[in-house]
Amino acid sequence: MIKTTEEKMSNLRIIALGGLEEVGRNMTVFEYKDDIIIVDMGLQFPEEDMPGIDYIIPNTAYLKDKKDRIRGIIITHGHYDHIGAIPHSMGRLGNPPIYATPLTAGIIKKRQEDFPQAPRLNIHEIKETDKIDLGCFKIEFFHVNHNIPDGVGIVIDTPVGRLVHTGDFKFDHTPVGDKPIDISRLKEISQPGVKVLMSDSTSAEKPGHSISEKEIQDNLEIIFKEAPGRIIIATFASLISRVQEVLNLAEKYDRKVAIDGYSMKTNVEIAKKLGYLKSQKGTIIRVNRANDYPNKKIVILCTGAQGEDNAVLMRIVNQEHRHIKIQKGDAIIFSSSVVPGNERTVQSLKDVLWRQGGRVYHYQMMDIHAGGHGQEEDLRAMLELIKPKFFIPIHGSYYMLKLHGEIAEAVGIPSKNIIIGRNGKVILLGQKSIKISEERVPNNYVMVDGLGVGDVGQVVLRDRQTMAQDGMFVIIAVINSKTGRVYGEPDIISRGFVYLRESKDLLDQVRRKIKEIVSHTATSEHTVNWVYVKENIRDKIGQFLYTKTQRRPMVLPVIIEI
Amino acid sequence: MIKTTEEKMSNLRIIALGGLEEVGRNMTVFEYKDDIIIVDMGLQFPEEDMPGIDYIIPNTAYLKDKKDRIRGIIITHGHYDHIGAIPHSMGRLGNPPIYATPLTAGIIKKRQEDFPQAPRLNIHEIKETDKIDLGCFKIEFFHVNHNIPDGVGIVIDTPVGRLVHTGDFKFDHTPVGDKPIDISRLKEISQPGVKVLMSDSTSAEKPGHSISEKEIQDNLEIIFKEAPGRIIIATFASLISRVQEVLNLAEKYDRKVAIDGYSMKTNVEIAKKLGYLKSQKGTIIRVNRANDYPNKKIVILCTGAQGEDNAVLMRIVNQEHRHIKIQKGDAIIFSSSVVPGNERTVQSLKDVLWRQGGRVYHYQMMDIHAGGHGQEEDLRAMLELIKPKFFIPIHGSYYMLKLHGEIAEAVGIPSKNIIIGRNGKVILLGQKSIKISEERVPNNYVMVDGLGVGDVGQVVLRDRQTMAQDGMFVIIAVINSKTGRVYGEPDIISRGFVYLRESKDLLDQVRRKIKEIVSHTATSEHTVNWVYVKENIRDKIGQFLYTKTQRRPMVLPVIIEI
Repeated sequence: MIKTTEEKMSNLRIIALGGLEEVGRNMTVFEYKDDIIIVDMGLQFPEEDMPGIDYIIPNTAYLKDKKDRIRGIIITHGHYDHIGAIPHSMGRLGNPPIYATPLTAGIIKKRQEDFPQAPRLNIHEIKETDKIDLGCFKIEFFHVNHNIPDGVGIVIDTPVGRLVHTGDFKFDHTPVGDKPIDISRLKEISQPGVKVLMSDSTSAEKPGHSISEKEIQDNLEIIFKEAPGRIIIATFASLISRVQEVLNLAEKYDRKVAIDGYSMKTNVEIAKKLGYLKSQKGTIIRVNRANDYPNKKIVILCTGAQGEDNAVLMRIVNQEHRHIKIQKGDAIIFSSSVVPGNERTVQSLKDVLWRQGGRVYHYQMMDIHAGGHGQEEDLRAMLELIKPKFFIPIHGSYYMLKLHGEIAEAVGIPSKNIIIGRNGKVILLGQKSIKISEERVPNNYVMVDGLGVGDVGQVVLRDRQTMAQDGMFVIIAVINSKTGRVYGEPDIISRGFVYLRESKDLLDQVRRKIKEIVSHTATSEHTVNWVYVKENIRDKIGQFLYTKTQRRPMVLPVIIEI
Repeated sequence: MIKTTEEKMSNLRIIALGGLEEVGRNMTVFEYKDDIIIVDMGLQFPEEDMPGIDYIIPNTAYLKDKKDRIRGIIITHGHYDHIGAIPHSMGRLGNPPIYATPLTAGIIKKRQEDFPQAPRLNIHEIKETDKIDLGCFKIEFFHVNHNIPDGVGIVIDTPVGRLVHTGDFKFDHTPVGDKPIDISRLKEISQPGVKVLMSDSTSAEKPGHSISEKEIQDNLEIIFKEAPGRIIIATFASLISRVQEVLNLAEKYDRKVAIDGYSMKTNVEIAKKLGYLKSQKGTIIRVNRANDYPNKKIVILCTGAQGEDNAVLMRIVNQEHRHIKIQKGDAIIFSSSVVPGNERTVQSLKDVLWRQGGRVYHYQMMDIHAGGHGQEEDLRAMLELIKPKFFIPIHGSYYMLKLHGEIAEAVGIPSKNIIIGRNGKVILLGQKSIKISEERVPNNYVMVDGLGVGDVGQVVLRDRQTMAQDGMFVIIAVINSKTGRVYGEPDIISRGFVYLRESKDLLDQVRRKIKEIVSHTATSEHTVNWVYVKENIRDKIGQFLYTKTQRRPMVLPVIIEI
């Protein structure tokens, strides 16, 4: 007991509530004595086995009785996997101050407006050169490249030494609409000696260097040079750098850019207002004016590169867009990766676009998309520049963290100094040591589904999966409590199992079987055990349906005694 | 009318029942006067919006009253997208003779055993050098490279000229366990002049040449050289060439190969028996003997590279395998692509393998998998060798066919001679002309789900999707037919919507609302319109639940009058 308290007193506690076993849901707690700071508060998109879930946020239960000690929340950049849990979690955490660069702050504020129930945020805008004190923590920042501007890494000076947290980053020596990552600043940061580096592992599996945004712009230019008609570019609304590239090329090739899609328009508006997107007056037009210009003079920049149901590109191909239809001669560019799980949707979208007369350009054909994360050589460079004593790979699945750990070993960090953490595990950093303690804090998925936060659990998900596979089969038997016999015919409500109108025989057989089961198990006894009768119906009818169809719908018997 | 008949008489009719708007479900009908031949009879794996479906097969309704005219079915190779519909469709087609090379025939026969209800097949084994007559069609074959041996392309001499159908192919000048594609044979075939080339478009989007299997073997060898312990290789059971590479390397590095997984063992057995897989006596061992050897002496070759639920690799990581557990030092190789839709499952599988102590090698890290389909340069070479007058790209989504069409134009085939077909459309080939007629034959998806073939349609699928998203909500109201009032409390059966035990308040409110709706709409009238009452309950409760939760479960009211 005493030892634990002592440890608590003299160690920095580093706790990832998310981000160490997935890509997304990034949120890390730094705790020293009475002071807590938090870096990022992101969401994660649901897995395939979570039908109906909107997204997943970190569990903040650990912080519930420590609200008063939270000195601030630092957000590294404006992507949803780093800011997305803010509207849901800030109320629960006592709404502590948020520190973010202007663009990041602008995006956070705008998103908060979509959640009228969420508290008004207390956001402090920071500059890269700022130094701020949060309790015992002294914070500095450094500029990083990503595919949204204004991203920062964080230097955290703590009583046990200096920590560096990279945020999401890549090295881009020729970025677009941004300045290169500042190598001399990284060297300066490493000067006093860095105790711990926490570095982005998302692309640790990919060999070589990440592609520069300049190269992407050059490849996009090939299409701009050749395109006989309109150019339609679909990308993530969050890739502000890509938007800048499109604006640059449009101006060079004398085209107007019509921007469409709620999130795209919002982000562009914020970025332009804050000076992170530059274009000449008149380059950007409203989408309802796109048809006022010759096709060769138009670029349409929109959302929907993942085949999302309600995004602009989907509305266009479904002929539901008020102004835009695909025409022969359109060049359609998917300037984004395909998020795992969306591949088939994107394939059929491409198919429809071709069918409607467009020519589709995709990253599989040429480099018209670059990820925002450093690949093997970028990660090696960061390790070599920062020269940390201890290394904690962050942001990624376990295998990404492990591979990043191998890179660290290769640059000379001893394996005992490399900590592969897990969500919810407490890493203890002392003056001279680092270790993972046995302590574990709650870190399960908190699922957001409609208005519900955390109310959908394993039971509900399992039921959704079962019904998705083979449907459900509700049996309603009204029973005469005096005779123990079924009144008339049992009702059957089934969906997603077989087409009922064509399965009359099967249903007749089921009804007969139900009556048999009831009369076998329920009659001639004084007190009928209806739970037992129901179980019997569930098992026997389930088995019967499987024998007949090799499908296993969810069988739900209801017995109503009259 | 007369014209149509005349057309029918003098034209060759080419009808794809599948394979032109998807990857899979390949089946093409060639019809001239009274003679019909069919090339391939494959299945397709379901899309994301088809939960619970096992696979999709072509609709053969067009052939129903033409059974007597089917002279034969030619199968190009033994993959499921070319043979998978055979057990389901042969009975409906009058079980005509099948022509296939020995390995293909062996795989077809073995699979047929899994379908005891299906007819006994009449399979003729062919050699590449055979010439066969099927009605007015004269058939020859040519060897192609793919990732299963014994694949053939087909030369079809018809009264309107020579057709060449490539099957699935790539050019591999250094294949493993196979001979290279025979260039001089292709030139010979082109000599008399080829009227139509039908060529595989699956990888038309990928620039350059496809990777040789020899290169894959060389890359696998790097891992064999370094691996400190066991090597576990997961791949598709159908990649017989990959199996040969593993056997070669195992013998070179003095390891035994334990093969596991039903389909893998079956295919290896067939291929070995027929001489398509070569290994020394004693190289292959049973998996229950794998632990009798030192780790450095063992390779485990198994299924499960897609994260399939019941495959060997999944059983291993779930600790359900009787003999194999992951150990520290295991090198686990995923020697396969990831089928679109499986990405996230494969990612978590990799994660668990790393966690259990293995080191995972994946195609994203190095070329340890090659596709079986020719890429842009291979396709160009085929077009240049065959020099067809007309070109019909086959095997692929529309955009793949279009891109393949662009390659054909680039080698000099006029665009009017390039036919981008659609499933079910009839292509008419005359002595001098080719065109797509207006005629369309049934070509919808026939879905196989358990024992049901074609009985799951759009209604059932839509219901499955709805229930997967937000669950279902069955309301059972027993009503006193005299008073028109609800007896006691309405029953509610809900699954996949909210966790019921924690939603007592919500359910109480719903029950109250139901009673209100019934008493408003049903009382004080002599003949109650129960359909109207039910609709009212569905709408109002649906709306109420949406307001409270922003979820839309399927609401199913049941009214029982007593």
